[in-house]
Amino acid sequence: MSFVPPDHPRFLSLMYRERLVEKFKEGVVVAQGLIAHGRGEAFDYILGEQTIPPALEAEKAAAALLKLARKPVISVNGNAAALVPGELVELSKALNAPLEVNLFYRSEERAKRIAELLKAHGAEEVLWRPDQELPGLSSERRRVSSKGIASADVVLVSLEDGDRTEALKRNGKKVIAIDLNPFSRTSLTADITIVDNVIRAIPNITKFVKAMSEREAEEALERFDNARNLREVVKWIKKWLDAKTSELL
Amino acid sequence: MSFVPPDHPRFLSLMYRERLVEKFKEGVVVAQGLIAHGRGEAFDYILGEQTIPPALEAEKAAAALLKLARKPVISVNGNAAALVPGELVELSKALNAPLEVNLFYRSEERAKRIAELLKAHGAEEVLWRPDQELPGLSSERRRVSSKGIASADVVLVSLEDGDRTEALKRNGKKVIAIDLNPFSRTSLTADITIVDNVIRAIPNITKFVKAMSEREAEEALERFDNARNLREVVKWIKKWLDAKTSELL
Repeated sequence: MSFVPPDHPRFLSLMYRERLVEKFKEGVVVAQGLIAHGRGEAFDYILGEQTIPPALEAEKAAAALLKLARKPVISVNGNAAALVPGELVELSKALNAPLEVNLFYRSEERAKRIAELLKAHGAEEVLWRPDQELPGLSSERRRVSSKGIASADVVLVSLEDGDRTEALKRNGKKVIAIDLNPFSRTSLTADITIVDNVIRAIPNITKFVKAMSEREAEEALERFDNARNLREVVKWIKKWLDAKTSELL
Repeated sequence: MSFVPPDHPRFLSLMYRERLVEKFKEGVVVAQGLIAHGRGEAFDYILGEQTIPPALEAEKAAAALLKLARKPVISVNGNAAALVPGELVELSKALNAPLEVNLFYRSEERAKRIAELLKAHGAEEVLWRPDQELPGLSSERRRVSSKGIASADVVLVSLEDGDRTEALKRNGKKVIAIDLNPFSRTSLTADITIVDNVIRAIPNITKFVKAMSEREAEEALERFDNARNLREVVKWIKKWLDAKTSELL
């Protein structure tokens, strides 16, 4: 890992960038995943690299939906495993929900490596050997586990492609998406869209899951409106652009 | 190269992404360059993946400054060489200005490979063996050629880091930067900042260089105000966010 001075204004962002490159060299992340991470960096930058209030509201609603689910499943790809392995395991334990490896650029070897990374961070069970297919999806992401996504009612996805989000919806799942682009097909299709960096979103969801009563969960879900929330996100981005313009230009 | 259907709404963006991955495998682009490309993709997305009017104005001013320069030099890094090798060569010929390879993650092997790529696209002379150092810069980017950047009065840089842009300025150079983030240190430090994708910016500059008289060049430079131009860019981004919100949310 290259050295990043801790007083650098964008220390966290640079540290996670180095972690991604490291995990790329280990075969957990693919080249296209590095490009996707860069897109995320830019979108996070225009949020001010912080959890904005509508994102926190979406994280609360996500915790509520996961808590009230019959069978919630956390879908994990290479970038998510590289960035927040321990945090994913903690959420999985708080929910008593399985982690399932689901990859666009899938190979047996890579899926296994990601499962091992999660186990090294304390995961008890990781589903990484799919035995079923999600109808209406042609990419490798169609391959799911009967003990996981195939029988889930609620799926948490992060850093996702639009085709798969739509396929999950068509197959009757509720989808919670963590996606930094408020206009992506995933963001527009999901039931709950969290426009936040996974490094902040996952720990926030876990905190809400642990603190929330069932009654509070029901209330949070009732209040939540995804399209309204996404419009609020855009307002915050515009506010950030204005603040930055006043400061620098 | 993976197959991208030509009717895909973001065909060009996906095609250039595949090209980057291909050039990464060939050793022209580094892992960090893939992340940087992703950042560029996201910033280009919020411009609507088009040359917005203030960018076109900056491209005109850039052509003017290059045309009136005593000794203009075009600095090339791995990503730029991967994305627009032929376009860089064409600009270099239109200006009769050298191309100089300048890398943050420099190795002799990689610099040579980039020079060969440019030569394969018709470049007559590529400077890639630095023999001097730019004072006040510690990264590998300090290494410059006495026949190029060291003796240049105007340097065109793209996809640049802020440290180097500042060092070029301190050493008395005029800097033209192509940078999709209007708030980056490079964007704020350069004399002329072009907030546009290199795939559109370089051909636009070449077109202006060929069409513009010396008189027109002087007038274009007189009119141009970089801070005002950057404020215009931010207005266009906000306009795009509003349009997208109306359309989708």
